[in-house]
Amino acid sequence: MSPAGTSPKPSNAPFNEGAAHHAAPSRFGVPALDEMPDDVRAVCEESRAKLGFIPNVFLAYARRPEHFRAFMQYHDLLMKGPSGLSRAEREAIVVTVSAENTCLYCVTAHGAALRILGKDAVVADQIATNWRTADLSPRLRAILTFASHVNEPGFTASEEEIAKLRAAGLSEQDVWDVAAVAAFFGFSNRMAGLMDMRPNPQFHELGRPGSSR
Amino acid sequence: MSPAGTSPKPSNAPFNEGAAHHAAPSRFGVPALDEMPDDVRAVCEESRAKLGFIPNVFLAYARRPEHFRAFMQYHDLLMKGPSGLSRAEREAIVVTVSAENTCLYCVTAHGAALRILGKDAVVADQIATNWRTADLSPRLRAILTFASHVNEPGFTASEEEIAKLRAAGLSEQDVWDVAAVAAFFGFSNRMAGLMDMRPNPQFHELGRPGSSR
Amino acid sequence: MSPAGTSPKPSNAPFNEGAAHHAAPSRFGVPALDEMPDDVRAVCEESRAKLGFIPNVFLAYARRPEHFRAFMQYHDLLMKGPSGLSRAEREAIVVTVSAENTCLYCVTAHGAALRILGKDAVVADQIATNWRTADLSPRLRAILTFASHVNEPGFTASEEEIAKLRAAGLSEQDVWDVAAVAAFFGFSNRMAGLMDMRPNPQFHELGRPGSSR
Amino acid sequence: MSPAGTSPKPSNAPFNEGAAHHAAPSRFGVPALDEMPDDVRAVCEESRAKLGFIPNVFLAYARRPEHFRAFMQYHDLLMKGPSGLSRAEREAIVVTVSAENTCLYCVTAHGAALRILGKDAVVADQIATNWRTADLSPRLRAILTFASHVNEPGFTASEEEIAKLRAAGLSEQDVWDVAAVAAFFGFSNRMAGLMDMRPNPQFHELGRPGSSR
Amino acid sequence: MSPAGTSPKPSNAPFNEGAAHHAAPSRFGVPALDEMPDDVRAVCEESRAKLGFIPNVFLAYARRPEHFRAFMQYHDLLMKGPSGLSRAEREAIVVTVSAENTCLYCVTAHGAALRILGKDAVVADQIATNWRTADLSPRLRAILTFASHVNEPGFTASEEEIAKLRAAGLSEQDVWDVAAVAAFFGFSNRMAGLMDMRPNPQFHELGRPGSSR
Amino acid sequence: MSPAGTSPKPSNAPFNEGAAHHAAPSRFGVPALDEMPDDVRAVCEESRAKLGFIPNVFLAYARRPEHFRAFMQYHDLLMKGPSGLSRAEREAIVVTVSAENTCLYCVTAHGAALRILGKDAVVADQIATNWRTADLSPRLRAILTFASHVNEPGFTASEEEIAKLRAAGLSEQDVWDVAAVAAFFGFSNRMAGLMDMRPNPQFHELGRPGSSR
Repeated sequence: MSPAGTSPKPSNAPFNEGAAHHAAPSRFGVPALDEMPDDVRAVCEESRAKLGFIPNVFLAYARRPEHFRAFMQYHDLLMKGPSGLSRAEREAIVVTVSAENTCLYCVTAHGAALRILGKDAVVADQIATNWRTADLSPRLRAILTFASHVNEPGFTASEEEIAKLRAAGLSEQDVWDVAAVAAFFGFSNRMAGLMDMRPNPQFHELGRPGSSR
Repeated sequence: MSPAGTSPKPSNAPFNEGAAHHAAPSRFGVPALDEMPDDVRAVCEESRAKLGFIPNVFLAYARRPEHFRAFMQYHDLLMKGPSGLSRAEREAIVVTVSAENTCLYCVTAHGAALRILGKDAVVADQIATNWRTADLSPRLRAILTFASHVNEPGFTASEEEIAKLRAAGLSEQDVWDVAAVAAFFGFSNRMAGLMDMRPNPQFHELGRPGSSR
Repeated sequence: MSPAGTSPKPSNAPFNEGAAHHAAPSRFGVPALDEMPDDVRAVCEESRAKLGFIPNVFLAYARRPEHFRAFMQYHDLLMKGPSGLSRAEREAIVVTVSAENTCLYCVTAHGAALRILGKDAVVADQIATNWRTADLSPRLRAILTFASHVNEPGFTASEEEIAKLRAAGLSEQDVWDVAAVAAFFGFSNRMAGLMDMRPNPQFHELGRPGSSR
Repeated sequence: MSPAGTSPKPSNAPFNEGAAHHAAPSRFGVPALDEMPDDVRAVCEESRAKLGFIPNVFLAYARRPEHFRAFMQYHDLLMKGPSGLSRAEREAIVVTVSAENTCLYCVTAHGAALRILGKDAVVADQIATNWRTADLSPRLRAILTFASHVNEPGFTASEEEIAKLRAAGLSEQDVWDVAAVAAFFGFSNRMAGLMDMRPNPQFHELGRPGSSR
Repeated sequence: MSPAGTSPKPSNAPFNEGAAHHAAPSRFGVPALDEMPDDVRAVCEESRAKLGFIPNVFLAYARRPEHFRAFMQYHDLLMKGPSGLSRAEREAIVVTVSAENTCLYCVTAHGAALRILGKDAVVADQIATNWRTADLSPRLRAILTFASHVNEPGFTASEEEIAKLRAAGLSEQDVWDVAAVAAFFGFSNRMAGLMDMRPNPQFHELGRPGSSR
Repeated sequence: MSPAGTSPKPSNAPFNEGAAHHAAPSRFGVPALDEMPDDVRAVCEESRAKLGFIPNVFLAYARRPEHFRAFMQYHDLLMKGPSGLSRAEREAIVVTVSAENTCLYCVTAHGAALRILGKDAVVADQIATNWRTADLSPRLRAILTFASHVNEPGFTASEEEIAKLRAAGLSEQDVWDVAAVAAFFGFSNRMAGLMDMRPNPQFHELGRPGSSR
């Protein structure tokens, strides 16, 4: 190419110069802990005691306490309530849907949760990249196949796919739970997209071999 | 065509012979009123008193009371709670998203709500078919444009589109509310698709000129 | 949010303030009745005598009489000519395709025709929202499944799908007619999109229980 | 790879062994000339006199004379009637739309027409492959950009794109004609897909430098 | 339409007035033969001796000799190296993928190669328009079905589709070769799109009945 | 739900029971080191000396030495040859494209390379999930925006997007390099999808804070 085509940039220079990690949990701002209602602050402090930091999703929703409460109540019912799905299976659904929706916050935060609860960081990473090529048991493959279908626009369940889930050992309530977790996180992914929610940097290493958790 | 091509079916015969309206509110079955917990039954009965029938979404969720409560609490916060968006505007968001997701239950039930609250059955029908070609004010067009974007997989909000909403008179909380209503109903649409939720036939005529409501 | 975030709009305000129904049948304008050639005006007046108003599609095409004639002749052959498909079945094809193409004029006008000819306003509304979840007989489901396929870009018919239609009782001519109606209205939908064709408001209520027709 | 991986097929063998050119004009069969109504046969014979062969689209539609007549009348109005678009421009629209719909019959037959009428076999071939990278004048680029938009499902025209066409020298009738030709051939492409219509082999060479036409 | 709608353009005017064939092989420019390294120039001259002209892809890549060498070495291995696929079959894969990617250079240049090597200009043209409706042997249909799948974003091969290829007579190496040719030309198509690579006009007629080659 | 709906699976059970990590580098098998030609084995051993293991891509391609050589030569030219793009920038392109193509092998292996070369594990993970929401400098955002466009089917570069890259400081050769790296890895992603290539487990932790590399 012409001399104008030469580039002074040395080939081994560091990349992404001048870019800083964008640290604000939400584009709408977050309240200080002492500005939060007591119940909201209590949830945040409990989480900090357990993880060592407050996940940004708590801070972002704390901006509107009524929304914080409604979201967390539904979230906890789906993710921690009684179900034939293990907690790790539910996190696998969340990571599957969030990866398909390319949701940075949810893939990062729930990817960490899946590494911890599932005790298999390799499979957790695989699901975060492409659940279809992950090393899955037939039961987990059936679950994630359905979760991915739920995540599509215009989803309606066929009798055939419900029968396949039943054949994989899921009860009717379990089928409901797969769909509810998948669909709720499609909602949550979009709220993260609204707020430009940023994952806490600690999530990147949680649950990895070199990590204390 | 050959004589084999002739068809004995008279050209003016009724269509869809032998098909019955599928009346079950949910493929998973619904409890009788007297099997419901008191608080759930109270919601159902209140609704019947007001509308003359119990919307099938109540019956379908009553199958699992904890899910009923979490869903209705979040729903009511979003659809009836304080907001700079009028209730009719919120219903217009629901109909827009539900039409894009081709959700039979939600388009039918919330189409009726929009006809009643918006007091314009023509525009309500237009939004149920194609919000883009509906007769919208600039404010409502801005709202539905954003709601439709939220509904896309992989949604993230740009600064530009938020600025457009602010320029149309929406507060930051209003922007949040547009996204929350749109995303929550993406979730709800998928739950209706899971359950094969059927709209009560009464919804088809509610809010029309010839209707008493 | 900050005080700037508060919104003075009362939550129950009417919605869509300032928007008027856009009444022009076509963006290209329409001729007065006395400017039309005799044969074109006769069609318009016959329609007004029958329905009480002139459907805007007639006025829009009357702008160019040669196009009016070619369109109406083909339309009438497909929709009213001899066929093994009932007229209601043909309207169901039109509504299916028009809903997939989100054509406001055609969904509204032919939705009304389907309610009248099919004598089942509930199923007509279902098809206008999502034919897949409508209460369809096996024959009508086979017809609309094929019509929807025809509507896709790059359509080619497989032997398998033609065999399914034959098994559902359709003759070869009927198969042709399903495809011809579906494809012709894909054409018609795009002409409506060109002209920004607006449905007459009367179509919204025709064929409903409270209507005289 | 294992010995089983070796293949006896010599690298320079002819390809596609055993495949014959599929010669039936339509999967539904075609009538003999002397079975056709006089007016239909006259069109076929006129075409044979002019081209040396009868295009298969005539034979395929002759199966149903009423459809033949309605199709040909509309076709001739659009493709040969008075318009501000030259006949070559109209063929360029047909090839553009047919290529996007990957319609074998229409790309081949109208590709030949475009080579003949446009007197530029290179540009005709370019449009058949990708109109976007073809060597187009600003006027023809504006026309084909709009035609391609018309061809999309859910098309509605914006004021902005109509203004661009007007700025490129098109009248309102010309805009209508671009859309009508594009949309009519979307219909025609689907009819060819229904019938598995096969192009006459002669079309491949018509209008090429080595051809007498 | 109004008098403003009349257009002075005569209906039979030539089309595409003022557009010239865009002759530059690449938007980045090309070196003169005597500026090329000896090995690169030798390839160009050999090609000119054989075809009568230098394909523009050689000139375009000659801009960067190291890229020229890496590209041509890989290309020749895939297209001319030992394989259970005939050279014509490999060209059919290239044309299939290039047509799906609407790559003007590759469809035109490799369409010519396929006409020459396959000795069937009709089928070559069919594949350039739509391989699905081309007159293919079962073996070639199996090959092109797989090639088209490889070309999709996110491709992963299933055991089932590999088994189908094996059943059609392909060895494991042949399966690899189908995928490698298809995927390499997805790469090549994008490089042509980068450079705005223009096909030499001679390619349009090579291998046609009226051509000396 | 009915008692049949109860599930005996305890909610905290481990997930994915019975699934093993699928360890074969390629579905087509790989040669032992002593079965490889000397030059191929030397590459493998050099890589093991440097990384502590042989990346599975080397073993998979070693199945066919000629392909190994052509692939590695082109790969090394693009990824290690002289360029105005730093090596980390090139890896960022690879991760961007591979994530869009959901290629498990390439996201995992090149994600590790990007963590090491870019010295920012957080941004590397962000790019692996969604480059659009990653913390990027304007230069890197311009590069990845173009790389993502190259990766789309039917890509052609516009003058406008090339001008944007030039404005971000890239030379013409750099623009070429962005496209070449992006398109070459679209090819490579598909080869990994062909072979069901599995990432070595070590890649998951390389370049992380707790890792020695």
